[in-house]
Amino acid sequence: MSVSTRHLNFPTKGNGDIIDITEDVAGGLLKSKITDGVVTVFVPGATGAVTTIEYESGLVSDFNAMLERIAPQGIEYMHNLKWGDGNGHSHVRASLLGPSLSIPFAGGTMMLGTWQQIIFIDLDNRPRDRELIVQIMGE
Amino acid sequence: MSVSTRHLNFPTKGNGDIIDITEDVAGGLLKSKITDGVVTVFVPGATGAVTTIEYESGLVSDFNAMLERIAPQGIEYMHNLKWGDGNGHSHVRASLLGPSLSIPFAGGTMMLGTWQQIIFIDLDNRPRDRELIVQIMGE
Amino acid sequence: MSVSTRHLNFPTKGNGDIIDITEDVAGGLLKSKITDGVVTVFVPGATGAVTTIEYESGLVSDFNAMLERIAPQGIEYMHNLKWGDGNGHSHVRASLLGPSLSIPFAGGTMMLGTWQQIIFIDLDNRPRDRELIVQIMGE
Repeated sequence: MSVSTRHLNFPTKGNGDIIDITEDVAGGLLKSKITDGVVTVFVPGATGAVTTIEYESGLVSDFNAMLERIAPQGIEYMHNLKWGDGNGHSHVRASLLGPSLSIPFAGGTMMLGTWQQIIFIDLDNRPRDRELIVQIMGE
Repeated sequence: MSVSTRHLNFPTKGNGDIIDITEDVAGGLLKSKITDGVVTVFVPGATGAVTTIEYESGLVSDFNAMLERIAPQGIEYMHNLKWGDGNGHSHVRASLLGPSLSIPFAGGTMMLGTWQQIIFIDLDNRPRDRELIVQIMGE
Repeated sequence: MSVSTRHLNFPTKGNGDIIDITEDVAGGLLKSKITDGVVTVFVPGATGAVTTIEYESGLVSDFNAMLERIAPQGIEYMHNLKWGDGNGHSHVRASLLGPSLSIPFAGGTMMLGTWQQIIFIDLDNRPRDRELIVQIMGE
């Protein structure tokens, strides 16, 4: 059993930018030489989240439309009144979706569905340079 | 330390069908002979999700009512306009809830609450034959 | 590789009380002597949840306001009609947010962002004494 810690770095546009990171996570898994275990993908920040989706432009739009219903940009947030950075909606959306995702793998391959991709969602209200953690643990 | 990969297979009715899989996960854990660690339950697909609930018919209904408020079936989804399969609401609900759940266990027993069951939710708009991954890692 | 199981115990006020447990989880990690791996924080119950947030009073208020939009207290819940305990909203909110969180650590330190804290949210409709599970696995 061993642990391998890897980092993914990429720029985003913010404002619900959804990035397909499946190939990057798979690449890290391959380099780790660990064949059976669990990959933990983690967002070290409070305005981004990870989940899975069938990555196509329709759903990218639909997913953001759902977040706008749940936590609209235009309403009052106490965070904005206190700190003035205008990203209260970004924070509550990120906490709702959550920063971590655990994906089992066996025989060197993540057990994702055929139409299922791993995504990072940048919920902040401005472009960001992001770093994600990919922790691989297994044998 | 070792890893044991198991599969659960069952049919569902779709449309928010919620299945209590607690006993199936516990059975897999028992067979693995691993006594202390973490079970990862994972949905290899983009229209199902896992979480926990007090499994009783009232909450099964209430949980689906909440999802209908968040992502109603009757509104316009770009996914449906592009692909015509009518399950845009299924996809965004699944991505919101997430495909993975991590449950610690010790002494061979998952540390669930007394009134807490592990559930799979089939959010697709038709019956499906489902396979879930149960990855057990520990010592 | 080894596994260390720890427990956090604390009282809450219920009704969306949000507790910053970052230091408690970090303290457990330090005592475990495990330096690289994954911490799983788990709620053994059906009316609490864990996630991360920038812990400040504005967002604590904003996060609860979002939950009230998604699952208002004042509407009809089948759970309440059947069981009479008035916490249907607590249950569906907890299932939506989820009971587990996986945080990678390396060199003895959790890889959280600077403004990112681990929180427990007590969604029940009354004060509770809570116990959380902190399972540390790694090398």
